[in-house]
Amino acid sequence: MSLLDQINSPADIKGMSVDELTAVCAEMRSALLKKLSARGGHIGPNLGMVEAIVAMHYVFDAPTDKIVYDVSHQSYPHKMLTGRMKAFTEPEHYSDVTGYTNPAESPYDLFSVGHTSTSVALAAGLAKARDIEGGKENVIAVIGDASLGGGEAFEGLNYGSTLGTNFIVIVNDNQMSIAENHGGLYADLRLLRNSNGTAEPNFFRSVGYGYRYVRYGNDLRSLIEAFRAVKDIDHPVVVHINTMKGLGLPAAESNKEAFHYAGPFDLKTGAPAVADNTEDYTDIFAKHMLERMKADDRVVVVNAGTPGAIGFTPERRREAGHRFVDVGIAEQMAVGMSAGLAKGGARPMVGLVATFLQRAYDQLSQDVAINRQPAAFTTFYTGMFGMTDETHLGIFDIALLSNIPNLIYLAPTCREEYVAMMDWALTQDSCPVAVRTPGGPVVSSPNREILTDYSKPRYEVISEGGDVAIIGVGCMLNRALEAASLMEQEGKTPTVINPRIVTQLDTATLDRLRNYRLVITVEDGILDGGFGQKVAQYLGDAPVEVKCLGLDKHFYNRYNPAELARQSGLDPDQIAELAK
Amino acid sequence: MSLLDQINSPADIKGMSVDELTAVCAEMRSALLKKLSARGGHIGPNLGMVEAIVAMHYVFDAPTDKIVYDVSHQSYPHKMLTGRMKAFTEPEHYSDVTGYTNPAESPYDLFSVGHTSTSVALAAGLAKARDIEGGKENVIAVIGDASLGGGEAFEGLNYGSTLGTNFIVIVNDNQMSIAENHGGLYADLRLLRNSNGTAEPNFFRSVGYGYRYVRYGNDLRSLIEAFRAVKDIDHPVVVHINTMKGLGLPAAESNKEAFHYAGPFDLKTGAPAVADNTEDYTDIFAKHMLERMKADDRVVVVNAGTPGAIGFTPERRREAGHRFVDVGIAEQMAVGMSAGLAKGGARPMVGLVATFLQRAYDQLSQDVAINRQPAAFTTFYTGMFGMTDETHLGIFDIALLSNIPNLIYLAPTCREEYVAMMDWALTQDSCPVAVRTPGGPVVSSPNREILTDYSKPRYEVISEGGDVAIIGVGCMLNRALEAASLMEQEGKTPTVINPRIVTQLDTATLDRLRNYRLVITVEDGILDGGFGQKVAQYLGDAPVEVKCLGLDKHFYNRYNPAELARQSGLDPDQIAELAK
Repeated sequence: MSLLDQINSPADIKGMSVDELTAVCAEMRSALLKKLSARGGHIGPNLGMVEAIVAMHYVFDAPTDKIVYDVSHQSYPHKMLTGRMKAFTEPEHYSDVTGYTNPAESPYDLFSVGHTSTSVALAAGLAKARDIEGGKENVIAVIGDASLGGGEAFEGLNYGSTLGTNFIVIVNDNQMSIAENHGGLYADLRLLRNSNGTAEPNFFRSVGYGYRYVRYGNDLRSLIEAFRAVKDIDHPVVVHINTMKGLGLPAAESNKEAFHYAGPFDLKTGAPAVADNTEDYTDIFAKHMLERMKADDRVVVVNAGTPGAIGFTPERRREAGHRFVDVGIAEQMAVGMSAGLAKGGARPMVGLVATFLQRAYDQLSQDVAINRQPAAFTTFYTGMFGMTDETHLGIFDIALLSNIPNLIYLAPTCREEYVAMMDWALTQDSCPVAVRTPGGPVVSSPNREILTDYSKPRYEVISEGGDVAIIGVGCMLNRALEAASLMEQEGKTPTVINPRIVTQLDTATLDRLRNYRLVITVEDGILDGGFGQKVAQYLGDAPVEVKCLGLDKHFYNRYNPAELARQSGLDPDQIAELAK
Repeated sequence: MSLLDQINSPADIKGMSVDELTAVCAEMRSALLKKLSARGGHIGPNLGMVEAIVAMHYVFDAPTDKIVYDVSHQSYPHKMLTGRMKAFTEPEHYSDVTGYTNPAESPYDLFSVGHTSTSVALAAGLAKARDIEGGKENVIAVIGDASLGGGEAFEGLNYGSTLGTNFIVIVNDNQMSIAENHGGLYADLRLLRNSNGTAEPNFFRSVGYGYRYVRYGNDLRSLIEAFRAVKDIDHPVVVHINTMKGLGLPAAESNKEAFHYAGPFDLKTGAPAVADNTEDYTDIFAKHMLERMKADDRVVVVNAGTPGAIGFTPERRREAGHRFVDVGIAEQMAVGMSAGLAKGGARPMVGLVATFLQRAYDQLSQDVAINRQPAAFTTFYTGMFGMTDETHLGIFDIALLSNIPNLIYLAPTCREEYVAMMDWALTQDSCPVAVRTPGGPVVSSPNREILTDYSKPRYEVISEGGDVAIIGVGCMLNRALEAASLMEQEGKTPTVINPRIVTQLDTATLDRLRNYRLVITVEDGILDGGFGQKVAQYLGDAPVEVKCLGLDKHFYNRYNPAELARQSGLDPDQIAELAK
């Protein structure tokens, strides 16, 4: 019987010797490697934190003591120790748990978290609540070095140090973001590591924290000693631990970026179990941007800590050189900086994952849109066919971006439009333009009408029928076209429209639909605040009926996109049925 | 003839001696005092920066050298030196300029700015563009000590130090935010001031900057020397200047909070020219929260650097003690922390100005809404009757908040509903609830039906008529009622509805309107993404016509609310006319 089978809660490791704990760590790492190689997931972050999390649960008394994991990429070992071991040791239970901390799974998980840089703020709230209520428990925020670069982390640290009571921030310094780190702070962290924590300047002290450095952050004895020293401390303190991302998987230790998050892989070689060389939109984006950089010296691609998610592999970053800017996990900076770049005469293209762009709404509105700076943006993993964890949904992008004045948000339906719209965004001077990467696999539609100017809303009327019109946004256009085919089989020809743009209405085209029987809008995001509601309002005083198809406003979690489309009436046969 | 009359551009001060510049500063300060006492404005920030801005324009060569002012509360002296002197010396020209930097006024103004903590990001973009283009100009970000607490400033600093080229950050340390500063960073700034810049830890060095301290930040010689030393520098550097907020107006020097921004005042005594003791909604909020704190030990009010704007005067803050939390200008932290407070068993009420809540959309969605934490929020200066600068508009709040799942956004129409809704928000446990402070003066409507539970959408049908319904959101309900009165004078009785809630539809009530002739929705924000469009979509397949009244999506600037209401068809007679 393995040691792991005996661990149902942290109480089960409390009585162990360090040697026993070391054996537990070894078994945990083996189990993680087995599951991760079969299922994929966040590999490097979890492998690097096994000892630290074992030591935390050994020293602290969760759930009375409260531990908040930043972004929770590193929470698998925590889940193993807190009642969910089988989800990591028994393949038939592998799917029992989500990839993030999840209060629905366990009282040891305090928040559902998937965006970075929030743990210190969340923990500061817990600590303040404790102080008001007269509690004595330890409150612990765990945060990675990369997450420290996000503004919310700084805001949290800055306030947290004024609490004046127990507040423990464990900084997991694995010297990596998803890719490499960027920022002056990281030179200070290096200085601290190289001096065994003794150097000045010390960022953590400068914002008001006591400070303790752990040189061997994968050594249980060092960790236990450090955590014991700060347990029940009466003031805010940072414990800076130096860990090895990917520890125990040689391929992950040597290629940290590839193994931050990956699909199933061969445990011996690290090779992906399924070699996927299918070109996707991120490839199209990155290749095209490299071409644009060659053609125009002013083009700069800006990203916030997720270069791989926008197709900029290490090779492509090397090729782009100083024209590829990664500001760290700092979306506000990426967007704010783009206004400065455009004002300065450069041609910025900011590539951001849609769910993370949410963090820079104000910068997009204030710095960019009010100032009408011709910065370009491309959003990734938009709509319902992107990421499916509740913390990473792309279904809110139209509601968020389409209601900002001065901004144009374009929704290409295929690779030809995608490239053409990005090209136009990078050459026009009138306003900021965002291009929405279509959901799903790459679609090529050479018949789409390409414009040389997308500044004025001009819908593409693909087919013109009698009394029903279907307007399909972005990747939903193909569903509209398929619905039209089904209707044509029954002798009815609907009008099918590619709106191209979701921030402005083509009122001339919409006016032509006023006396139709029915207009159906189809989008792959939430209906509230989206495209269809704008059409419904515009046609609200016309005789035509308007039906808006899309998603109900909800935080869907780990959903199946095909099933959700069906539930939401978005399949072609359902659209055709509605049109009757 | 005064010295000021001879200054049309920075070139006109370049040849001056320091004594002459000193005389210029004295005249500028006199002119500012005269204008500010007559017109009000940002008093303390501008008075404290006269010498620094004169020295900047003396040493640097704008507009070739690029100066970006954070939040631009301190930009009046800059405007005086850059072609807009008359707007500060001649009363008939006082209104010629806006209160913020404004590219439409002058090429010396690079951005329209009114939110804090953006200057370093904007300047970093300018510097990167310069480096790509091979330029040699100086790029200078000016930022106040308080603005450093905002996450975007940290993100900007962290990246900016990696530029490796000329990048000058001038930190205007006047030891104040709008009110007092909060955060561990401020202890470090104090340490640096007290040590004449020599102490460690040094926050600025810790994030990668060269560092220079100016003990007398209102002394021209010291400033000129420091700026000359960093002009054309080949790496990122911080110049930390210690200034006196409000210098030259004794009342402002001694009461910095009251004179951060103020209306017209008596130049001798500092007394407000017009004593305004009218109770407004901020008073109602703050008084009521103090009562709630007495009744419930768990209630905590959280704010992000604008306590006065939510009614928490220094006296009220003293009364609230540790139950009033000001996290500094850090909206992300305020919202993120509220999730931790609620999870920890406290009852947080986060009071934020609507335009600044935009900075925490992601935290509201992720930390709070996904986690269904019962944190309460009150938004201030919502809708079109709040602040009228393009950078401070409250008209986007419904579009931003009403499309977040799990969140309830309530729109009270009067003080009775306002208080009742806040009380419910602070006692329920089901989800986060935001309460929208009504625009305009306080309205008392004892006849409004108060509910004990606002969790389910339930519209209040105030009067029931024949074929027309008018749904008035928040403060627009009274316009709907006035329109109804006008219609009744002509013998027609419309149905008038108070929707109470803007995040969910009361479909049962709306279904009763399906066979009406016309439904009119009236809101005081933008139509796109707002309340009316949700109604229009819901009723899109019904015979009833729907007309949505509200504002076009636009960054209105320094508008007259009454005129904008008229232009937008929001006056009662216009609504009544439409109903015909």
